[in-house]
Amino acid sequence: MKVQPKERIILGIDPGTTITGYGVIKVNGTIPELITIGSIDLSKFEDPYLKLKHIFERVTGIINEYHPDELAIEAPFYGKNVQSMLKLGRAQGAAIAAALQHSLPIFEYAPRKIKMSITGQGAASKEQVASMLMNILKFKNTDLKLDATDGLAAALCHFYQTNKPVQGKAYNSWKDFMNKNPGRVK
Amino acid sequence: MKVQPKERIILGIDPGTTITGYGVIKVNGTIPELITIGSIDLSKFEDPYLKLKHIFERVTGIINEYHPDELAIEAPFYGKNVQSMLKLGRAQGAAIAAALQHSLPIFEYAPRKIKMSITGQGAASKEQVASMLMNILKFKNTDLKLDATDGLAAALCHFYQTNKPVQGKAYNSWKDFMNKNPGRVK
Repeated sequence: MKVQPKERIILGIDPGTTITGYGVIKVNGTIPELITIGSIDLSKFEDPYLKLKHIFERVTGIINEYHPDELAIEAPFYGKNVQSMLKLGRAQGAAIAAALQHSLPIFEYAPRKIKMSITGQGAASKEQVASMLMNILKFKNTDLKLDATDGLAAALCHFYQTNKPVQGKAYNSWKDFMNKNPGRVK
Repeated sequence: MKVQPKERIILGIDPGTTITGYGVIKVNGTIPELITIGSIDLSKFEDPYLKLKHIFERVTGIINEYHPDELAIEAPFYGKNVQSMLKLGRAQGAAIAAALQHSLPIFEYAPRKIKMSITGQGAASKEQVASMLMNILKFKNTDLKLDATDGLAAALCHFYQTNKPVQGKAYNSWKDFMNKNPGRVK
């Protein structure tokens, strides 16, 4: 029996209180495909609660529109200071609450991990990440805000992390290894 | 025409990822009355998302049950380290998102401000705050977790902050002052 590749829709979010970037990809088998990319501009709201409300409502709207199966978020675990981490935590909390309300499983990736996954370099610039994303997902948009591509990068990173095919190199046990590689054990 | 005192229901929350305490008071005129007090025990959940989900759902449930007009939260602005502030920010974000979904106005108070408002001392112990709350709101419960009383304290603090009666000592202008105090201006 051939296992049918499951179609997965992954929402990626890079939460922030100035810009929250997001991207949605669809994966059929091993080919990721761009569904949408965008950014939620929060700079127009001065009130910190209006920012959180807007994050919660927009993320809820994106989930209702694209029905993702999973949420991947870019989540720095360290920051400049406690004040900025509290603000960031609130933005993450609002985005995560919207996903939890729809029972989406959530996966977090550190910025360095995402850059490494997309470009092969943990210290890659935002421009390098954006250029690689356009290359992989075959789209071109020079008007995009870089925080939007960061959201998309989180989605693609999650796909790469969870789509490592077995390729005959995974073994359940030493016995399994020997059975699959009779010539390599002497 | 006599202005009728407006009945207000205030929900107070002390968000935390181990215990989230809450209290609801009803104010008719100038007398605050205890409606409910409790705590949301999150220590049983290991998964950090389950904790956030539970905060969001329980706060939503409390709002649906008691229909508060305002939310007061205890919000430390400084903490031990960035990691703990990120976690705290997420817990606050989930609680705030639940309130924003119901369009509740939100008011934040630093722990010191709350203690000062209830006991007259910014460095009061949790026990002193709890004892003062029981005295003011005329209830007795020695089984209460102290984080629950912290939520209630936030609600009462908010009432005190927003219920400063004019008492003839507020003046709109210097002219107003002179009119009300003819003997004091020479």
